[in-house]
Amino acid sequence: MRTLISGGTVLSSTGAHQADVLVDGETIAAVTAPGVFGADVKGTVDSVLDATGKYVMPGGIDAHTHMEMPFGGAFSHDTFATGTTAAAWGGTTTIIDFAVQKKGTSLLSTLDTWHGKADGNCAIDYGFHMIVSDVNDTSLKEMETCIDGGVTSFKMFMAYPGVFYSTDGEILRAMHKARETGSTIMMHAENGIAIDELAAQAVAEGRTDPVQHGLTRPPELEGEATSRAIALAKVTGSPLYIVHLSAAQALAEVAQARDTGQNVFAETCPQYLYLSIEDMAKPGFEGAKYVASPPLRDKSHQADLWRGLRTNDLSVVSTDHCPFCFKDQKELGRADFRAIPNGMPGVEHRMDLLHQGVVAGEISLARWVEACSTTPARMFGLYPRKGVIAPGSDADVVIYDPAARQTLSAETHHMNVDYSAYEGFELTGRVETVLSRGSIVVSADGFTGSTGHGRFLSRDLCQYLN
Amino acid sequence: MRTLISGGTVLSSTGAHQADVLVDGETIAAVTAPGVFGADVKGTVDSVLDATGKYVMPGGIDAHTHMEMPFGGAFSHDTFATGTTAAAWGGTTTIIDFAVQKKGTSLLSTLDTWHGKADGNCAIDYGFHMIVSDVNDTSLKEMETCIDGGVTSFKMFMAYPGVFYSTDGEILRAMHKARETGSTIMMHAENGIAIDELAAQAVAEGRTDPVQHGLTRPPELEGEATSRAIALAKVTGSPLYIVHLSAAQALAEVAQARDTGQNVFAETCPQYLYLSIEDMAKPGFEGAKYVASPPLRDKSHQADLWRGLRTNDLSVVSTDHCPFCFKDQKELGRADFRAIPNGMPGVEHRMDLLHQGVVAGEISLARWVEACSTTPARMFGLYPRKGVIAPGSDADVVIYDPAARQTLSAETHHMNVDYSAYEGFELTGRVETVLSRGSIVVSADGFTGSTGHGRFLSRDLCQYLN
Amino acid sequence: MRTLISGGTVLSSTGAHQADVLVDGETIAAVTAPGVFGADVKGTVDSVLDATGKYVMPGGIDAHTHMEMPFGGAFSHDTFATGTTAAAWGGTTTIIDFAVQKKGTSLLSTLDTWHGKADGNCAIDYGFHMIVSDVNDTSLKEMETCIDGGVTSFKMFMAYPGVFYSTDGEILRAMHKARETGSTIMMHAENGIAIDELAAQAVAEGRTDPVQHGLTRPPELEGEATSRAIALAKVTGSPLYIVHLSAAQALAEVAQARDTGQNVFAETCPQYLYLSIEDMAKPGFEGAKYVASPPLRDKSHQADLWRGLRTNDLSVVSTDHCPFCFKDQKELGRADFRAIPNGMPGVEHRMDLLHQGVVAGEISLARWVEACSTTPARMFGLYPRKGVIAPGSDADVVIYDPAARQTLSAETHHMNVDYSAYEGFELTGRVETVLSRGSIVVSADGFTGSTGHGRFLSRDLCQYLN
Amino acid sequence: MRTLISGGTVLSSTGAHQADVLVDGETIAAVTAPGVFGADVKGTVDSVLDATGKYVMPGGIDAHTHMEMPFGGAFSHDTFATGTTAAAWGGTTTIIDFAVQKKGTSLLSTLDTWHGKADGNCAIDYGFHMIVSDVNDTSLKEMETCIDGGVTSFKMFMAYPGVFYSTDGEILRAMHKARETGSTIMMHAENGIAIDELAAQAVAEGRTDPVQHGLTRPPELEGEATSRAIALAKVTGSPLYIVHLSAAQALAEVAQARDTGQNVFAETCPQYLYLSIEDMAKPGFEGAKYVASPPLRDKSHQADLWRGLRTNDLSVVSTDHCPFCFKDQKELGRADFRAIPNGMPGVEHRMDLLHQGVVAGEISLARWVEACSTTPARMFGLYPRKGVIAPGSDADVVIYDPAARQTLSAETHHMNVDYSAYEGFELTGRVETVLSRGSIVVSADGFTGSTGHGRFLSRDLCQYLN
Repeated sequence: MRTLISGGTVLSSTGAHQADVLVDGETIAAVTAPGVFGADVKGTVDSVLDATGKYVMPGGIDAHTHMEMPFGGAFSHDTFATGTTAAAWGGTTTIIDFAVQKKGTSLLSTLDTWHGKADGNCAIDYGFHMIVSDVNDTSLKEMETCIDGGVTSFKMFMAYPGVFYSTDGEILRAMHKARETGSTIMMHAENGIAIDELAAQAVAEGRTDPVQHGLTRPPELEGEATSRAIALAKVTGSPLYIVHLSAAQALAEVAQARDTGQNVFAETCPQYLYLSIEDMAKPGFEGAKYVASPPLRDKSHQADLWRGLRTNDLSVVSTDHCPFCFKDQKELGRADFRAIPNGMPGVEHRMDLLHQGVVAGEISLARWVEACSTTPARMFGLYPRKGVIAPGSDADVVIYDPAARQTLSAETHHMNVDYSAYEGFELTGRVETVLSRGSIVVSADGFTGSTGHGRFLSRDLCQYLN
Repeated sequence: MRTLISGGTVLSSTGAHQADVLVDGETIAAVTAPGVFGADVKGTVDSVLDATGKYVMPGGIDAHTHMEMPFGGAFSHDTFATGTTAAAWGGTTTIIDFAVQKKGTSLLSTLDTWHGKADGNCAIDYGFHMIVSDVNDTSLKEMETCIDGGVTSFKMFMAYPGVFYSTDGEILRAMHKARETGSTIMMHAENGIAIDELAAQAVAEGRTDPVQHGLTRPPELEGEATSRAIALAKVTGSPLYIVHLSAAQALAEVAQARDTGQNVFAETCPQYLYLSIEDMAKPGFEGAKYVASPPLRDKSHQADLWRGLRTNDLSVVSTDHCPFCFKDQKELGRADFRAIPNGMPGVEHRMDLLHQGVVAGEISLARWVEACSTTPARMFGLYPRKGVIAPGSDADVVIYDPAARQTLSAETHHMNVDYSAYEGFELTGRVETVLSRGSIVVSADGFTGSTGHGRFLSRDLCQYLN
Repeated sequence: MRTLISGGTVLSSTGAHQADVLVDGETIAAVTAPGVFGADVKGTVDSVLDATGKYVMPGGIDAHTHMEMPFGGAFSHDTFATGTTAAAWGGTTTIIDFAVQKKGTSLLSTLDTWHGKADGNCAIDYGFHMIVSDVNDTSLKEMETCIDGGVTSFKMFMAYPGVFYSTDGEILRAMHKARETGSTIMMHAENGIAIDELAAQAVAEGRTDPVQHGLTRPPELEGEATSRAIALAKVTGSPLYIVHLSAAQALAEVAQARDTGQNVFAETCPQYLYLSIEDMAKPGFEGAKYVASPPLRDKSHQADLWRGLRTNDLSVVSTDHCPFCFKDQKELGRADFRAIPNGMPGVEHRMDLLHQGVVAGEISLARWVEACSTTPARMFGLYPRKGVIAPGSDADVVIYDPAARQTLSAETHHMNVDYSAYEGFELTGRVETVLSRGSIVVSADGFTGSTGHGRFLSRDLCQYLN
Repeated sequence: MRTLISGGTVLSSTGAHQADVLVDGETIAAVTAPGVFGADVKGTVDSVLDATGKYVMPGGIDAHTHMEMPFGGAFSHDTFATGTTAAAWGGTTTIIDFAVQKKGTSLLSTLDTWHGKADGNCAIDYGFHMIVSDVNDTSLKEMETCIDGGVTSFKMFMAYPGVFYSTDGEILRAMHKARETGSTIMMHAENGIAIDELAAQAVAEGRTDPVQHGLTRPPELEGEATSRAIALAKVTGSPLYIVHLSAAQALAEVAQARDTGQNVFAETCPQYLYLSIEDMAKPGFEGAKYVASPPLRDKSHQADLWRGLRTNDLSVVSTDHCPFCFKDQKELGRADFRAIPNGMPGVEHRMDLLHQGVVAGEISLARWVEACSTTPARMFGLYPRKGVIAPGSDADVVIYDPAARQTLSAETHHMNVDYSAYEGFELTGRVETVLSRGSIVVSADGFTGSTGHGRFLSRDLCQYLN
């Protein structure tokens, strides 16, 4: 099966050029000057996709999703099947989801469980990070086996005491192992111990509505935890990746550490770039739709985050996709905001929302590709297999129409959740065609892939380490 | 004329992959997975270059050279012919040289003069920056014409009062024009007024040897001028590019400005990464060989500069190639260090010296390509014509042997100067073959290019502007 | 002549305590617990001042005034006689005025001239700083003689090219002399070269009204000059005192330098704490009343300055008293803001305006005394003669009624100027009685001093040097 | 009982002046110009102390001591009787010791216990801080009663898990109470959770000698905890006082917070200014003498701490006096450094060691008095009763001979401990006479006070709050 994508503008993390892309089987065989293969190419390829006036870009990589994530008896509402299909619709051809160790269980059995959930059920390729909830001699040793199995990054939590929370001593132990193995510690950096106290005070005082979720998680406590994670990483020599950075205070800590050359990286998410605590304050429990952690911040943080994206102090944009339906799920917290499942849907809209940043002049075209595809590939050991249009790379290719218009809505989105956090947002730019490892999975014909197509990606180590 | 470079590892600013490169005429026609063109390719190409075990990389871009630069009656000792030939020997396929406005003359006549010097005399492609020494209504207006003519960056001096020095008011005026046109102000950031006072004091006290050149230009005065240039750029909204940054204090200012998202960039040079003020203190006037401005610093600055290269606070490595022979030229300052011509040779060794940084673990392979080729191309409006191995780009390609060993020496180098600043340096890695716009100019057969081959590059604006 | 001030609350830079103060002749003879001298004291003292419910505090020291300052053919409108009388009315018992070297004249003849103006004409004690406009071998040598004569601080200007402006080289020379002698360089830190360019542009574009004075002197250019002055001080080792700091950007530079332990100090003025660029934008040329340099800033700077006062990054509050009448003087600039004489009246209101800061909770009572009296005394070599209520100190004492109310107005003030910058301000707190070297000069009877009373103060070096 | 101290140089936090001091009963009655009371004063006073050529200064205030502190079954080796006597010998006339809440007990019973230990057993006046180990509704409420009882500062620990350690949530609760009451939270800022992990690793690897105490408590983890405490204080609005700051990293955090105007203060101790981790590495278990927390640091930190003292980022010098004998006590940790009792003796030498800083030019005379007496008095609500030579103040007066020489040694010191951390140190300056509330307690006749003389000081709130 050979496909020629002709006439388009090929995008990379450094710019754009006119080129044709020849796909042969699952990979890219050649990138050529326009027309190099000549008019008689039709005899040698199976199909030609005309990309004239369109972008031809590496498929998006969403390095932070939670499909079917167990949460207090329930699960986040997208399965690997529905979630990866929605991702494909939005031009994302790789996700890295989180296997979630439950305290008292082993990393390896956890990984087995997650392989079981995902294998044969994904529309696109996928990898795993491992959430380490239970640090002990066994789990530390298992980190090595995880790495051998292509899971090279380990997430820890400074929030959620009693659930995912690790003490600073446990973090230190895991970081020593990360240093030893060259793997990466990912950190949910909020001071959960202090936050839980503030939340308890709020409830004790009768403040129970969704916006309290935000008010009891002040940005200073994200800044603090970020600073602490950086200090622990410095003491141990471990690489550190701050997930879902939302606050200017945290960004300042990351920027300062990066200036010193420390291996510290951060991602932000579209919701922090576009939404704010005002959404959480919407009347009638509507705010529950926007409850996630860290919480949405004051609007003033948005400009800082866009700037951080430009300066590369924020290296990656992921979604933290973790959808809970408003009905029955979000509603669990009507009486007490602490019972609202934390998380928002978003895997489908990342590429479009960030392209909107290009349209608005916040970031360049090259930076869009870099933050959404090339950098996650390099950060998480997938490059050059993923994240670039280059010969030998997987043919994960998006043909993107920069001029199309669309309106986001729960009525039209493909995520398995009953609301959209971006209901009514009008955007310029839209995915036209998506190839995953050489197969067309989304096109004018709709979704034409299959949820058995996606394969597990065994990942290498981070390629950014100093 | 079609050439296939086969079997090599193609390098880019984001990494490496195995690929073949097809050159057709002056440009790259295709980059393909190894062997895509099959065994019968020999019938369709004119030659095949076997790059097995070698790097195939975009030719180096040296954004800061001074060929035949007038200096107090004399000229820097490399002509465009000898200098660009030496550059080619070292894997550099583009230089951007400085046209030097003399006070009282116009920018356009200056540009004519420099075109006259370079046209028909270059072994590789070249562009110009314009040094603005005389800010007035006419020269400001001429900046627009320069930009139309492909000269989109303008260098000013906070040093050298009476020669190139511009006042802060003049800088402000030029920056307003840069803001208006989107062009870039390049700055030699040393407080020349204060330095001249310190130098006069030294001479008055009988301290006249070469090391005084360094002692009277303390790093604080580079930090100060850098801070000032950044403030003026902020007031005007102009992009700013700090040339030949040498001091930790200046780096700190650049890093801080970049954290705020200001359009501030900086380059450093190999001499600041490898040499130090100790070289300037060598006995017997030997130190004169190392006299340049800013001066070589204490060794402690080197680690900061390497770190800055890693963090991208230093975006580019250029050479500030400005060779003066020891005999007759450097010797002019035997009685008074202020009469030593300022400058050092280096255009030939940049790629090798920075590859040595890869070998030493200071920077990654991708970063080497980025700082020496891709970023200068994007910074100075040459991308994707230059700075990348991509279809449609100029076939400026270097085949680099990462395992070869060489020793630098004036006896073997090709620059037209009677000493080497790196005499006896032993390096790992060496250029094997160089193509300039599709033609082999350096190979095992030696230099096979011609000094009439190089063409003037009309440049676009900086591609990094926020 | 012996006077007992009984029953009051004695204030110092560290707090308050109940005590009686015995004045004997020109100095304080004793400070005692209340009533120590017993009921029979009346037989041994000439008078008793009842200070019950009042503050008894060291007289204010205004370290920055310009009496009879020559300005473009005219003079600031307060003579030493009228200005020092107004100062006394406001509880200030010492001023340090500026002798102004004219280019081409000597420091010593300048000093003679200023002694001639002030001697026998002052209601309170006074000292001099020397403005150095003409740096050369002679004037540098004369700095030593000035210091011997009790003038131990030298002001230089980075603004006002062609008038007071010194180049960075000249500043460097003077700083070397300051380092050598232990004297202090005071700096007007605005980048006058850049500002003059911006002002010329404004006028060329027809923007000539008073507010343009502020708009063409952006706070970044005060920050820049402050940073530069600090760098030059660091290179030379000279102590540095930034006068009339008005901008948050400059404060940040000072704070950073002070954190490193460098001998850098700064003062601000009441006008920057209470007034803003909005005043300069008042209609009908009214804004001219507020034209001074640096200019009044956006209101947002005020909170930063109050904070700087609390943190001691701003050590002193002076007035920069330099009164020009609106009629005939300010009016000179009706056609071009650049012709408006720069300066505002204020010597009379400093103590009251800062007490208002105590009332508002911005600063503590101890800090009020410290910033307005004790610190200027220590900073400029007058302590413990001035700046403290202590035995042996000059009996410069203010009895202050913290509960009195007053309204500021040109109709009631004693400065020789036809407007008040604080017209209509309602304040809590008011001077009740003022003693200068033991003599009552202001009381319920009005001004009872004489303009021949004040004596020249030969000052020592700064007492804060690290 | 009336005593005249005549002919001396009276020191304050702002400078020095010649004055006589009249003591009447327990307080200072008057401070007068020399000889004001005349030659016939001998008839009216009980004694005259000739202080010619000597300093007359407010007695030292040591705000951080641990007398009879329970530690793992043993007690620190100085009782209130021996410890306060040693303090008096060294010119310290007030200590503020720590009442130590044991988990499961109440603050009030703790306070009773400490009153029981100290009452009637102290040679000088004393106050208490309260260590809060057990944060709960009862203890939080008891904080109010403590404040009413003159204990207005509460110490918490981020170190020592399982003993004194409080979680960030508990700290938050106590800080809310501090904010509400205006009281101060004092913080032992080391990340004890991380440190215990590092220490366990060291022991597991067989590294058990005293220097490991230092190596497992890296300065980054003091910086981290300091940063965290500041963040929690910012969130709550509580004043914060960092005890025994030892590391440059922590100082940087304090300086940054203070620049923003936050109510953050810090003390350091003489051992961090003079001793280093090299002492802990002395052979033969000698290093155990120097085991305290935070640990002694690399020598490079000393210059930073002296600078911090000059810049007032370190406001107070206390001793953290907590003596354990080498024999039997320190020796408990021969097999495992974690069992070495943490603490060093020092209450006797603080004034002398800091005077040595004056001799060496590190700090000024005024700063010596300020950091050792005036500031602790203001910080902990004792001013103007203590911390100043002023009428009405307690007559806690030290006559200090700045020219005397002494050598420190366990053989001659008066602390009840079998070694000196400063054995053999040769110092310039020595206490000559000490008055506590008007009584001579140390003089040429030796200690003439009594351990029943000292009284409990009920303290007000901190006087520095912004």
